[in-house]
Amino acid sequence: MGIEIERKFLVASDAWRAAAHAVVPMAQGYLNDAASIASGAQNASVRVRIEGDVAFLNIKSREAGTTRQEFELPLPVDDAQALLKLCVGGLVEKRRHLVRHGAHLWEVDEFLGDNAGLVVAEIELDAADEVFAHPDWLGAEVTAHQRYFNLALAARPFSRWDAAERG
Amino acid sequence: MGIEIERKFLVASDAWRAAAHAVVPMAQGYLNDAASIASGAQNASVRVRIEGDVAFLNIKSREAGTTRQEFELPLPVDDAQALLKLCVGGLVEKRRHLVRHGAHLWEVDEFLGDNAGLVVAEIELDAADEVFAHPDWLGAEVTAHQRYFNLALAARPFSRWDAAERG
Repeated sequence: MGIEIERKFLVASDAWRAAAHAVVPMAQGYLNDAASIASGAQNASVRVRIEGDVAFLNIKSREAGTTRQEFELPLPVDDAQALLKLCVGGLVEKRRHLVRHGAHLWEVDEFLGDNAGLVVAEIELDAADEVFAHPDWLGAEVTAHQRYFNLALAARPFSRWDAAERG
Repeated sequence: MGIEIERKFLVASDAWRAAAHAVVPMAQGYLNDAASIASGAQNASVRVRIEGDVAFLNIKSREAGTTRQEFELPLPVDDAQALLKLCVGGLVEKRRHLVRHGAHLWEVDEFLGDNAGLVVAEIELDAADEVFAHPDWLGAEVTAHQRYFNLALAARPFSRWDAAERG
């Protein structure tokens, strides 16, 4: 178990692409639904993810904001494929680009399918107030905006957002 | 991933105790709630179980009856203890006794806590119509009765059943 501290931002331009040094295709889904988590009927999300040629089951406690308990269990890819069929809501597909900037590694998620057009950049930190260099291509912070949670994107993808929500 | 075929029975007497050759203490809970599974809002139960000195995360597809998809992932016991705190509904605690009879191994679950007084015997089979020897202590079959599901026992324990339900 780890405590996860991450901050999430939009991107202001495509300039991150030139600095990306790796890309991993990802497909993921959730065994429980966003409404159950949001209502407090359940305390943790249970995610199935295939990333490249490996797979994981990932459990996160539901606290909003930057700090959550996180558990990650390796999973055979065959099992992950079967589990994705048991998921509720849509699957979230994306390409995760790794972009080093200063001392930190950014994960820039370029969403596909029903979430195509959405690009977000995440950084994992050791402390909530940790200082980090802001790259030029970084846009507005959306860490606290629940509609950007992958769990929410499975239930209500970017293609269904209105203009105000897209910002 | 395995396909699980199991049948569940009440016990008609305590005679199984003399034949029990091992006992494992178990504590388990569910990250999703029985109502979400029952309503079809979710397709699989996600169980955390500590059994003796090991722990597992177990995912079962929600089909009622004897055949279900089952996935079992080993889990560090420390993580399991943290995850039990994220579970919804009550914890289910029991002693699992292993009882060999003929060619089969029975698991006799003696429930504790809020489910004290309930004892059920389970057998795992290779086929739904597999023939097996019925020990003298075996009672009525309850495989299809959802209130005996451990998931249901977490939400509505035996102590809250009325006389008709206890049979």
